[in-house]
Amino acid sequence: MRKKLLVFTCLVACISVVTGQKINWTPVAPGIWKGVVGVPESYDLLKASGSHPNSEALEKIMQSAFPFETDMAVGRITDGKTSLRFPLEKEEQLYGFGLNFQTVHQRGKILQLHLDHYGGKDNGRTHAPTPFYVSSKGYGVFINSARYINVYAGTGVRKESRTPAVAKDRNTDKTWSSRPYSDAVEIMVPAPGVEVYVFAGPTPMDAVRRFNLFNGGGVLPPRWGLGFTQRVKSLYTSAEVEKEAADFSEKGFPLDFIGLEPGWQSKAYPGTFEWDKNRYPEPGKFVQRMLDKNIRLNLWINPYVSKDAPFYNAIQPYTGSHTVWVGEVPDFTIPQARSAFFGQLKKSQADIGVSGYKIDEVDGYDYYLWPDVATFPSGISAEQMRQTFGMLAMRYSADIFHEKNQRTFGLVRANNGGGVSLPYVIYNDYYNHEDFITALINSGTAGVLWTPEVRASKTAEEWIRRFQTVIFSPMAMINAWSSGTKPWSYPEVASQVKELALLRMRMMPYWYTEFARYHFEGTPPFYGMALEEGFKQEIKKDAANKNLDENPYAEATSKEIKDQYMAGEYLLVAPLFTGQTTRKVVLPKGKWYDFYTGELAGDGEVITVTPGLDKIPVYVKDGGIIPMMPAMLHAPKASEKVDLEIRYYGTKPGYYKLYDDDGETFNYENGAYSFLEIRVTKNAAGNFVGTIADPVKGKPNTVGNVTWRFMSK
Amino acid sequence: MRKKLLVFTCLVACISVVTGQKINWTPVAPGIWKGVVGVPESYDLLKASGSHPNSEALEKIMQSAFPFETDMAVGRITDGKTSLRFPLEKEEQLYGFGLNFQTVHQRGKILQLHLDHYGGKDNGRTHAPTPFYVSSKGYGVFINSARYINVYAGTGVRKESRTPAVAKDRNTDKTWSSRPYSDAVEIMVPAPGVEVYVFAGPTPMDAVRRFNLFNGGGVLPPRWGLGFTQRVKSLYTSAEVEKEAADFSEKGFPLDFIGLEPGWQSKAYPGTFEWDKNRYPEPGKFVQRMLDKNIRLNLWINPYVSKDAPFYNAIQPYTGSHTVWVGEVPDFTIPQARSAFFGQLKKSQADIGVSGYKIDEVDGYDYYLWPDVATFPSGISAEQMRQTFGMLAMRYSADIFHEKNQRTFGLVRANNGGGVSLPYVIYNDYYNHEDFITALINSGTAGVLWTPEVRASKTAEEWIRRFQTVIFSPMAMINAWSSGTKPWSYPEVASQVKELALLRMRMMPYWYTEFARYHFEGTPPFYGMALEEGFKQEIKKDAANKNLDENPYAEATSKEIKDQYMAGEYLLVAPLFTGQTTRKVVLPKGKWYDFYTGELAGDGEVITVTPGLDKIPVYVKDGGIIPMMPAMLHAPKASEKVDLEIRYYGTKPGYYKLYDDDGETFNYENGAYSFLEIRVTKNAAGNFVGTIADPVKGKPNTVGNVTWRFMSK
Repeated sequence: MRKKLLVFTCLVACISVVTGQKINWTPVAPGIWKGVVGVPESYDLLKASGSHPNSEALEKIMQSAFPFETDMAVGRITDGKTSLRFPLEKEEQLYGFGLNFQTVHQRGKILQLHLDHYGGKDNGRTHAPTPFYVSSKGYGVFINSARYINVYAGTGVRKESRTPAVAKDRNTDKTWSSRPYSDAVEIMVPAPGVEVYVFAGPTPMDAVRRFNLFNGGGVLPPRWGLGFTQRVKSLYTSAEVEKEAADFSEKGFPLDFIGLEPGWQSKAYPGTFEWDKNRYPEPGKFVQRMLDKNIRLNLWINPYVSKDAPFYNAIQPYTGSHTVWVGEVPDFTIPQARSAFFGQLKKSQADIGVSGYKIDEVDGYDYYLWPDVATFPSGISAEQMRQTFGMLAMRYSADIFHEKNQRTFGLVRANNGGGVSLPYVIYNDYYNHEDFITALINSGTAGVLWTPEVRASKTAEEWIRRFQTVIFSPMAMINAWSSGTKPWSYPEVASQVKELALLRMRMMPYWYTEFARYHFEGTPPFYGMALEEGFKQEIKKDAANKNLDENPYAEATSKEIKDQYMAGEYLLVAPLFTGQTTRKVVLPKGKWYDFYTGELAGDGEVITVTPGLDKIPVYVKDGGIIPMMPAMLHAPKASEKVDLEIRYYGTKPGYYKLYDDDGETFNYENGAYSFLEIRVTKNAAGNFVGTIADPVKGKPNTVGNVTWRFMSK
Repeated sequence: MRKKLLVFTCLVACISVVTGQKINWTPVAPGIWKGVVGVPESYDLLKASGSHPNSEALEKIMQSAFPFETDMAVGRITDGKTSLRFPLEKEEQLYGFGLNFQTVHQRGKILQLHLDHYGGKDNGRTHAPTPFYVSSKGYGVFINSARYINVYAGTGVRKESRTPAVAKDRNTDKTWSSRPYSDAVEIMVPAPGVEVYVFAGPTPMDAVRRFNLFNGGGVLPPRWGLGFTQRVKSLYTSAEVEKEAADFSEKGFPLDFIGLEPGWQSKAYPGTFEWDKNRYPEPGKFVQRMLDKNIRLNLWINPYVSKDAPFYNAIQPYTGSHTVWVGEVPDFTIPQARSAFFGQLKKSQADIGVSGYKIDEVDGYDYYLWPDVATFPSGISAEQMRQTFGMLAMRYSADIFHEKNQRTFGLVRANNGGGVSLPYVIYNDYYNHEDFITALINSGTAGVLWTPEVRASKTAEEWIRRFQTVIFSPMAMINAWSSGTKPWSYPEVASQVKELALLRMRMMPYWYTEFARYHFEGTPPFYGMALEEGFKQEIKKDAANKNLDENPYAEATSKEIKDQYMAGEYLLVAPLFTGQTTRKVVLPKGKWYDFYTGELAGDGEVITVTPGLDKIPVYVKDGGIIPMMPAMLHAPKASEKVDLEIRYYGTKPGYYKLYDDDGETFNYENGAYSFLEIRVTKNAAGNFVGTIADPVKGKPNTVGNVTWRFMSK
């Protein structure tokens, strides 16, 4: 194989231009095809992620034909790089290309998919530069490469197009445009070969589901992961952490896990991965006392190793040429590096009851991380390591907990294609509330989770507006590592904040089921309107604002909805931001009902709402079923029975499959779970009647008493 | 050779990590060494530029030893790319890496040197991403590659450093820094080999001189190129152009050449490169009438070819795969493409008397230019073409004029390492006045010329402030292609603007000599304080402004002087910007005198000046000699005798070598030029006495009557 690769490398290197070749597609699962161009590299995203397709689930999705004319997908090796071309019709829109923060429509973009902190511009550098896109025509494309991938999402205008753009005379023709029609998505992978996957629809959401299931399905967090989490100030002591937990309890604020920041370690930046003896003199007892209160601990790390780490000598031969903050960078592709590093985490932390990690600074930015000239002992290039380092850190830390048959759920700053099943939520330091919501939308097509975490705020208004959105997100968190804020820090809104936190807890059965759908069906729990069936947006453009002296090429930009999103199957969330008292909400076709009152809000129309400071506008799809539980301060314990309040909205027949399992272990992997059918219909008398299936014998059953609320009159 | 390359390519591709090797240096000229790492590519910057070292001039610079310990320069081929490492001491500052617009100090930067329009951030993407840097220790380094080059200018922190950075505990140590000391400039060239050059000092300016002379020396423009130029509105007719010239003449404003914008062509974007028959019915007669008035014409082009161009069929087989504004992109490395394209320019324009070109949009940006997946028939990659396209367009258009033994001087949007002798000045659309000045500083270390062109202004104040700086720049221009402004468009300052334009003309002997020094000695005519001998700036840092919630890593930034510059050997220019009435000027060691009054301004100190709206502060070095001529409205004709007023400032013995030649042809290449020594000394009576050498027999002599002005009392 190695010899073959050499010969091929030579061949492609020697012929300066190889004419593009139609890509041959091999079915690898129902509605999924693989194409190979050149000789793919031995290290790629899927290998780094360690993911495996959920074949059983994939078989359940309806069959679908290859989604475009195969002649239109072309691969070519030139200049030692792989060029790919996929078709792009005039009315097509594109979504995806990773965790973008400011834009949803990706057609017309030029991106370099490069793992990095988010620098304020959607240029491909982000915490999850997933090389996957979804077309509005209902298919997806994934490039399985751990390289920096250049994407021309409909910008290049080829001489030899079947549907060529038309030249115009700018001197006299007012319809001249600086962006003529491009008939292709063109992609360059800087390696002499790559694997490509196409995911059929028929809808864009179907393509996303297939993509997620192909990567093993989304993560299923423990129930407690969906509760509320507070991250404390960096130099807190164990006594202060316990005091914090007591404060939450006393004030009646829910709390499922507390995050400890760098100060839990004896040294940080670079870290020792040991408890600081002064701040945490008895870690084992401390962790146990917290667990006894039903509060778990999550520990901040960044994986850069201090010379003072107890495993330094063991890991040192297996670290990269360059340091990060003078800490050594483990080559996690090498077993010795993994056993040294994760062995320490297991022994010192997981084994005494720590429940998870926050993995910081595995994204970038360039000024801190290793440069692209760095080398790693495995031979993995610096570039490939950059694209996958977060994924490796997640994967092998998750393994610690998997081996203990104990689910974890943590935070991370980097993910990539293939990492959808890893139990981590992305966060960052960017802290722009509007853009945080756009990221929530884009997380749905990036195969990742994202939290619009709350840190501090300038005003009570900002505080509650941010809090409202974090409650309707994958991780409901205050990150007070620097500010020391608490949920009640803004007294003017403390009671509303408490109500929101309790609402988060009450909705846990819904959130948990939506995550189960992520895992078992591939449906992202949070996504944008483009993935919502029946929602269609015309490609409209704003008028260009031309100041020829300063920008002779100003162009119209595409209108897009980037401030409202779907939270699970039934909820449409339309947050307000600081300074807003009113906003427009675009309701897709079909009836939508107010989540709080059950009143009809609209049907396929744009409504304007003025919800007041206390409320975040949330709408429920006609027939929507939202299972809720009592406002507990902590997630139910493993297999604990909990009463349900099943809410039903609208008038259409209601259908939901409530997920149930023990909530904490991986026994679901061996079938120890059930989906219980919930139905709401009208009886002969015209009254709504709800039914829920009986528990399945031999499966965990946490459903207590059920009450029904038919919300719409 | 080809076979050898193949074998080598295989070798380096197969060994995943080749340990770095000390680079071997071969002297190639006095104080210049070449190092070869791997197998350099056959197409590089120097080959694209067509430049040849000016060996004669290089021999004249003093010898100098290799400037750093040779062990400290290391090359390595990994992952098909070349990594380079050069030493970086703790107190070293770096300048260069191309035409940056916002920063002068480059230490601590990460750049990808990528030819592009300037996007508002010094990230390596610019109109001249010259892979050349100068160290404050007095040497320069040039990477001769037409690839996108990654530069880590002292950011990567290596495990195996001789002078390792020290780890600190961020938890408790307040001196923790997010940017620990890096001991190297690390560079990655995405090709399996590269040529590298080192240029000795002893001063930074000496290194720059050697670099420029190695590339053939700077351009020597025709005298008329240093006069005033106006670019007219795009759809002007020949009658309107003639009217414009008449207006200049009538109002007494100088004018040497007029620029015609896209409307001179029958079609543009893409272009036909033919005169528009309606707007320019008799181009030959029109051009001649203008020449008769001593006004030359410069024509806008961008080299993207319309199907309606008369040479379309001839060039079509030699264009790239992708179009720019639906125009085809000539592969100028192919002779047939050159003869079709430049043949048209010669026949239709140069041969009827057109004097030069403005070559637009050869820089970027990505949304208009060919993508990196494009191919060109020569096999030159899209990336290499991007890095050199402007240089190729300049080179071969300059050849038209060289063949006619007629100098040209035009405008361009892209240059690169090797292109210092090409007769073009860079401009762009960015239009930030402050940043335009910083670019003027950086042009001096980038081997390029840059003009802070004037377009339009919001106020008369802005107009005159911009005008003041363009007068002290390589090209004194109003670019009114869109706005239609004239020098007198702001009546409140029209008389001052006229005085400035006339000052530009009066200073022509000085400017012309300074450009001759650029050509014959390599000294850039415009440069920053870092290249000024005796000027030393401490590496001071501003205090970091930390808001940990929004940026946990905010770092101190290096203080730098980026708003004053040297204009030739003797003048320090300190512009004011809109809104400023006063400013600080940093005067290097030695006495400096006010350019206008001759009064002592200061000596090695920071002065504060309030010059009023009419004046741009300009200071003359002690002993400075500024040769001036009468305020003519057009540059002198070839070999026309012109009276001189020789100004002398200060008290030190004055020395200057006044350059003289015919001002229009390339006869200077065959020795038809002279440098006439000018000296000012004090005689026995304590009075200043000036002398100028007699004209050299057989050489052009344009010196008429000489008068002396001893400016300082």
